Amino acid sequence: MNEENYSMLCDFYELTMSNGYFKNGFYKKNVYFDLSFRKVPDNGGFAVAAGLEQVIDYIKNLHFDDGDIEYLRSKNMFDEKFLDYLKRFKFSGDIYAVPEGTPVFPNEPVITVKAPAIEVQLIETYMLLVFNHQTLIATKANRIVRAAQGRAVFEFGSHRAQGASGAVLGARAAYIGGCKGTSCTLTDELYGVPAGGTMVHSWVQMFDNEYDAFKTYCELYPDNTTLLVDTYNTLKSGIPNAIKVFKEVLVPQGKTNFAIRLDSGDISYLSKKARKMLDDAGLQCCKITASNSLDEYLIRDLMMQGAQIDNFGVGERLITSESSPVFGGVYKLVAVESESGEIAPKIKVSENTAKITNPHFKKVYRYYDNESGKALADELCVYDETVDDSKPHTIFDSNAAWKTKTLTNFTAKELLVPVFKNGECIYNSPSIDEIAAYCEEQIGLLWDEVKRFENPHTYYVDLSKRLYEIKNILLNVYEM
Amino acid sequence: MNEENYSMLCDFYELTMSNGYFKNGFYKKNVYFDLSFRKVPDNGGFAVAAGLEQVIDYIKNLHFDDGDIEYLRSKNMFDEKFLDYLKRFKFSGDIYAVPEGTPVFPNEPVITVKAPAIEVQLIETYMLLVFNHQTLIATKANRIVRAAQGRAVFEFGSHRAQGASGAVLGARAAYIGGCKGTSCTLTDELYGVPAGGTMVHSWVQMFDNEYDAFKTYCELYPDNTTLLVDTYNTLKSGIPNAIKVFKEVLVPQGKTNFAIRLDSGDISYLSKKARKMLDDAGLQCCKITASNSLDEYLIRDLMMQGAQIDNFGVGERLITSESSPVFGGVYKLVAVESESGEIAPKIKVSENTAKITNPHFKKVYRYYDNESGKALADELCVYDETVDDSKPHTIFDSNAAWKTKTLTNFTAKELLVPVFKNGECIYNSPSIDEIAAYCEEQIGLLWDEVKRFENPHTYYVDLSKRLYEIKNILLNVYEM
Repeated sequence: MNEENYSMLCDFYELTMSNGYFKNGFYKKNVYFDLSFRKVPDNGGFAVAAGLEQVIDYIKNLHFDDGDIEYLRSKNMFDEKFLDYLKRFKFSGDIYAVPEGTPVFPNEPVITVKAPAIEVQLIETYMLLVFNHQTLIATKANRIVRAAQGRAVFEFGSHRAQGASGAVLGARAAYIGGCKGTSCTLTDELYGVPAGGTMVHSWVQMFDNEYDAFKTYCELYPDNTTLLVDTYNTLKSGIPNAIKVFKEVLVPQGKTNFAIRLDSGDISYLSKKARKMLDDAGLQCCKITASNSLDEYLIRDLMMQGAQIDNFGVGERLITSESSPVFGGVYKLVAVESESGEIAPKIKVSENTAKITNPHFKKVYRYYDNESGKALADELCVYDETVDDSKPHTIFDSNAAWKTKTLTNFTAKELLVPVFKNGECIYNSPSIDEIAAYCEEQIGLLWDEVKRFENPHTYYVDLSKRLYEIKNILLNVYEM
Repeated sequence: MNEENYSMLCDFYELTMSNGYFKNGFYKKNVYFDLSFRKVPDNGGFAVAAGLEQVIDYIKNLHFDDGDIEYLRSKNMFDEKFLDYLKRFKFSGDIYAVPEGTPVFPNEPVITVKAPAIEVQLIETYMLLVFNHQTLIATKANRIVRAAQGRAVFEFGSHRAQGASGAVLGARAAYIGGCKGTSCTLTDELYGVPAGGTMVHSWVQMFDNEYDAFKTYCELYPDNTTLLVDTYNTLKSGIPNAIKVFKEVLVPQGKTNFAIRLDSGDISYLSKKARKMLDDAGLQCCKITASNSLDEYLIRDLMMQGAQIDNFGVGERLITSESSPVFGGVYKLVAVESESGEIAPKIKVSENTAKITNPHFKKVYRYYDNESGKALADELCVYDETVDDSKPHTIFDSNAAWKTKTLTNFTAKELLVPVFKNGECIYNSPSIDEIAAYCEEQIGLLWDEVKRFENPHTYYVDLSKRLYEIKNILLNVYEM
């Protein structure tokens, strides 16, 4: 799966445009594109960047084979010289990106690509879709994990994912966002995300009775057993049978790592009843897992009601980000290099001001307060600007220039790191566990106000004075 | 992509359960599972079945390689004999399914699998996810296509799809549901869904001015040009430049296959203005394409307001089924074969009556009225029942047995067709164009009442008398 060649997973216009760029000699012209987004899903305060590893795999693999060329030739639209160029195609540009697991905000570049126009264009679709998808799921997972307030959340959604990569890479993204594991075996095999899970109802139905089904399972997996107790009747049959089997099979062996799982009915009510029944039977060590249409909203309510749940299994509402299933990343031209190497900023105007891009090849700083450690603001600067964090630094709101803020006693950190240089990957990818730990740490540096589910505080993403002025000059050219 | 081996794309519990079945000798026991669903997305009246072709590819490819076995061994949970069994694993069962493009309804089997327990279990996740995904998108696409009332709809959503297969197979499903093409090149190359598309804003921005950008494009693709007119200002710049270029480059060559595309602003207002400007310039042949956050609801409104749009390009709201992004197919045990070969029906009860399964190995009939040709009802029968459509036939509502209906002058057609027999594929897959045509034809046989977007009429999915009685006997066993 991670060796797939997705070179042809591009929008057809990328090929027709590239054919045109080729004819016009634009394939020599370096351009700069930013991948950014305008809105956080579920109206949240921040997103969790994910998918860079798959972008890297894709760029490394990028090539057009004979079958691809033959297919394109059959369209009778492409110049033979262009097809010849594609046959020898290799990405030769530079890519900068925020590391996976970084909390990111609207209107800042999260990936910047510098390359000849054709190369920049051809990678658009796959890069966007893989970044959009994983960032969507990592962001959603993180919301759900925060709602669970320290209880473990497991990703259980493969059955309802939007396609195979939706399941496999969705589970990867969910782990980055804070889930403790997945039901998807392939995600474990390929990406090292711990897979787990025990039984479904058909296991219970295959035996003559529930007791036999439970007993067989406990004997098979005494070190890690979760019994699904709702096949017939949770309180009258499932939990009593589970208690009986735990006491007969596991307790005598000194085992303590076992649980029951509630998958239907009112989870809050049933979990309290179950907890009491288990405790009364002396099984304080037995954990309770709950699943069934969970998301951050329902988990928040369950927690408020004192539901006795130790682990949450979250399915379709996580793996599709059901309440907000689109991450709207866009990929826009921000600068063009002249033949003499000068970088000219470009802007895309729009009647919808939210769609106006931030021009130029940029650098992004994140400023942290030295006292609290918290992230204070991000600032977009022109690529050759440098901020000295040993001196006070004034930033200002790009929509309301009179709103300024002077930072003192802070640390500046560059958000985008070099990933490809002249077509070569120069990035040492962290392990998935390092990414997940980094994500948790970085989100810990955000103020609680930014993390609210409803109406979160808008984190500052400001422009440097120089970039602000450049943007205004460009906007005035296209007065509407 | 269609040669991927997704054998390890399974839930981990399928492996732990299978290991248990293996130890208990259940791998010899034939069981029957149904794939069905309980609810149509967007509260629609029917779904469009899709994804069978990928299920077939998957079953044919199903195997566990040395790396998979090694990975499983590293878990220290699986019996060596079971791993040895997996190494030699090949699907040996029977599969029945509704052909792709068939309109289907809640609570009827759309795929039935008969095989030894382990085999039935191991294919659960991938089969569900690929069927759920493509059926979701085909169903949504069909809603959008119906809203467009004969105008062409194109799938443009790759950028925002939930992963690579979300894009590639989503575009395939959208074509089954009635879209006329896609922007996704790989879907064309792999599945023959026509890919198209022309330019995005960066093309226009790469040139010194919009006129040069348009002119270059028209000269390059005179036979099929769509100019994106909203990069700077749709009415003041984009459309006047497009008209100028069409008249200078295309009209003198006698070309008539060209269009403009509106991608922002108020589509209804702009399309009417654009139509007038084009007509006044003598360009009645110039078509208008619209995109930007479209779905069936917005298209319905645009049509009502008389918007002058010939083609719709639909992106994220189609490729993720944004307003209803989960298709809830489930896969449940319905019967177990005894050693003597007798088929014993099984039921899954639930406090939630909607979750109670229809037991037994079943046959599904669809009844068509001979006069109108319309579909009247579906009936679930026990596998060995036969309906003689030359005689009157009485069906009754399984939830309200007093509601009966006697059919006369009708034709009975079996919905499920054999796809695998003893592990061999015996199904001749139709071409994608045949599937799309079959879908359009079959939906034409549904009453308009079933096709309403809001509060559609519930199509009858009844049980035969014999199946109804079997279900009741089983339910009484588990009185709650």
